[in-house]
Amino acid sequence: MKRNYIFAPGPVAVPPQVLAASAKPMIHHRAPDFDPIFKKCSEGLKEIFQTANPVVSLASSGTGAMEAAIVSSASPGDLILSVESGKFSQRWGLLAEAFGMKVERISVEWGHDVEPQQVADFLKAHPETKQVILELCETSTGTLTDVKAVGEVVRGTDALLLVDAVSGLCADELRSDAWGVDMVGTGSQKGIMLPPGLGFVSISPKAQDAIKASKSAKFYFNLAKYLKQLEANTTPFTPAVSLLFGLEASLDLLLGEGMENVWARHARLAEGARQAMKALGCEIFSANPANTCTAVKVPEGVEGGKIVKTLREKFGMTIAGGQDHLKGKIFRFATLGWYNQFDVITIVDAIEQTLALLGHKAERGAGVKAAMEYFDKN
Amino acid sequence: MKRNYIFAPGPVAVPPQVLAASAKPMIHHRAPDFDPIFKKCSEGLKEIFQTANPVVSLASSGTGAMEAAIVSSASPGDLILSVESGKFSQRWGLLAEAFGMKVERISVEWGHDVEPQQVADFLKAHPETKQVILELCETSTGTLTDVKAVGEVVRGTDALLLVDAVSGLCADELRSDAWGVDMVGTGSQKGIMLPPGLGFVSISPKAQDAIKASKSAKFYFNLAKYLKQLEANTTPFTPAVSLLFGLEASLDLLLGEGMENVWARHARLAEGARQAMKALGCEIFSANPANTCTAVKVPEGVEGGKIVKTLREKFGMTIAGGQDHLKGKIFRFATLGWYNQFDVITIVDAIEQTLALLGHKAERGAGVKAAMEYFDKN
Repeated sequence: MKRNYIFAPGPVAVPPQVLAASAKPMIHHRAPDFDPIFKKCSEGLKEIFQTANPVVSLASSGTGAMEAAIVSSASPGDLILSVESGKFSQRWGLLAEAFGMKVERISVEWGHDVEPQQVADFLKAHPETKQVILELCETSTGTLTDVKAVGEVVRGTDALLLVDAVSGLCADELRSDAWGVDMVGTGSQKGIMLPPGLGFVSISPKAQDAIKASKSAKFYFNLAKYLKQLEANTTPFTPAVSLLFGLEASLDLLLGEGMENVWARHARLAEGARQAMKALGCEIFSANPANTCTAVKVPEGVEGGKIVKTLREKFGMTIAGGQDHLKGKIFRFATLGWYNQFDVITIVDAIEQTLALLGHKAERGAGVKAAMEYFDKN
Repeated sequence: MKRNYIFAPGPVAVPPQVLAASAKPMIHHRAPDFDPIFKKCSEGLKEIFQTANPVVSLASSGTGAMEAAIVSSASPGDLILSVESGKFSQRWGLLAEAFGMKVERISVEWGHDVEPQQVADFLKAHPETKQVILELCETSTGTLTDVKAVGEVVRGTDALLLVDAVSGLCADELRSDAWGVDMVGTGSQKGIMLPPGLGFVSISPKAQDAIKASKSAKFYFNLAKYLKQLEANTTPFTPAVSLLFGLEASLDLLLGEGMENVWARHARLAEGARQAMKALGCEIFSANPANTCTAVKVPEGVEGGKIVKTLREKFGMTIAGGQDHLKGKIFRFATLGWYNQFDVITIVDAIEQTLALLGHKAERGAGVKAAMEYFDKN
């Protein structure tokens, strides 16, 4: 009777009612039965993205959604500013280069947030910049970007602001329209609590103009096609129907809770997790921690590479380790999607046991107690 | 208690055991639990594709799989021969052009198959041709291509043979390796009997060499990444885990039946359907009909546009009409995937009633009787 727990920053656990919805009998996506479902999904997503602009759905992972956003709104030779502070933000510069765009990078120390002034200086020196790309949450380090502040800086320029919210959406506050974000890309398997396989992109009027002017090579990820078909409440290519059935159900859950409450829940869970780690004598890796996932420095004397393995083998729990130069130096666990405070207690208890097994000295129960105390008071 | 029936050429009805499998609790795609599932899928697909070569899985529709095949194995300026005989085959030429390839077309009359000699003549005149693209089944007309014969012609040249088997795979015989097909693209929602959202591509050694040499713009659909990750039994981007759970179950069904039997079943069902239509006084549209779907000329005196609508509203059955210049002139229904002879009787009965309602004169039961007689004897 082995039980599995996913505490990795996506794919996340999917609520059973969402799994059940995604197993409904197939219907044809061009038949009238599909119309109200797709309409409900497209409208509900606007609330999730906090936008009045269209949000398109693609059959792809989150990377596909980001490719659609980047490639559809730029042309070869265009200058793109990529703010890179970890493994995932590095991907978008490489992607844009693969399509012939010229990429300049602001490299931020991993675990730190970009200074908005750096972006402002760059845009002043390079007013021809077409896109500024950054992360809501850099998943590899559990670090939040101050998207609102960067939005202020980009708003008055010719550049589009593209935000990779693949892991962060729902867990960390993002107000697309209010903060001047032109395009937000995400995947289904994170805060939206679905299995992977759907990508979503929101598109501002400024981005729609850029899409009209784009000359880059694209077909499946050409957002002009998706925008046109969205007006007819459909998609240019066969949509992932069963995952959209699931999306209807997950939107019911998220919008029933309300986005302000969804953000507040994630903030509370993440803070409880951070308090617990500190009480165990562990340091939070990020200088500006996100609520999506918590990156923790491996305490001295513990073999970092064994933490993920022990949690999996002893407790059936999947968390994530560090990537690249952080391999063995940090471990990361998410409080993302369908989670509550008892899930935090569960993972903290297991981490306590794991660290103790690997030689870390801490009072047994100190982490759980700190989390409980925080939850009791907040 | 309305019942819906899908007889459109995809998405098809999904067997309940496949739906149930796709609703299993989520697991992480980098956790060891996923390894045997992905391995079983990748190996099973080889049998479906009748190839010893790698078959990669993408989170995309069938169009995405075809984009991956075309774009990953050619470079801008390369000459591509697109054999076009209907709505779907026209897509690939446009797609290749969007990525800067030079496209020449052999335009075949809709409903007809290409003459292999035409391809041979073209390749003789243009030995620099990089790809020949054709359909296994052109879904818009229900027409089969003699892939084996074209394979003989392409085999000795420098060109790759790419086959769009999005609708045709499993329904119409395709022996990728034996027939010299380098790349086959398909989607999950047709003969493989899954919901839409997965694309698959098989890749011959000759195609693998072309992929290494390709300079086209690509990232998410770069098959070099998928081939590399497949060696480690994984994917470069988050796979559509729940659909792969479903694939395990549908592969059990298909491989349990055996590909020879799968093809024979589809051939028998399609022939029964054709016999029934003829017995109703209707003409089969295609000169070389596929087993994937049957295109039928709208009989004289019947308003063609009303057939699809009547079947849907009166019987809850989704079939497809004609596209472009065939709008209102043909109707199409599939015998594709999870279908047996009783399903053919069901759709034939409903078509009989529909045509009668729309003024067509035929003996009531003539179609059903013809199908039953054919099935009894074969």
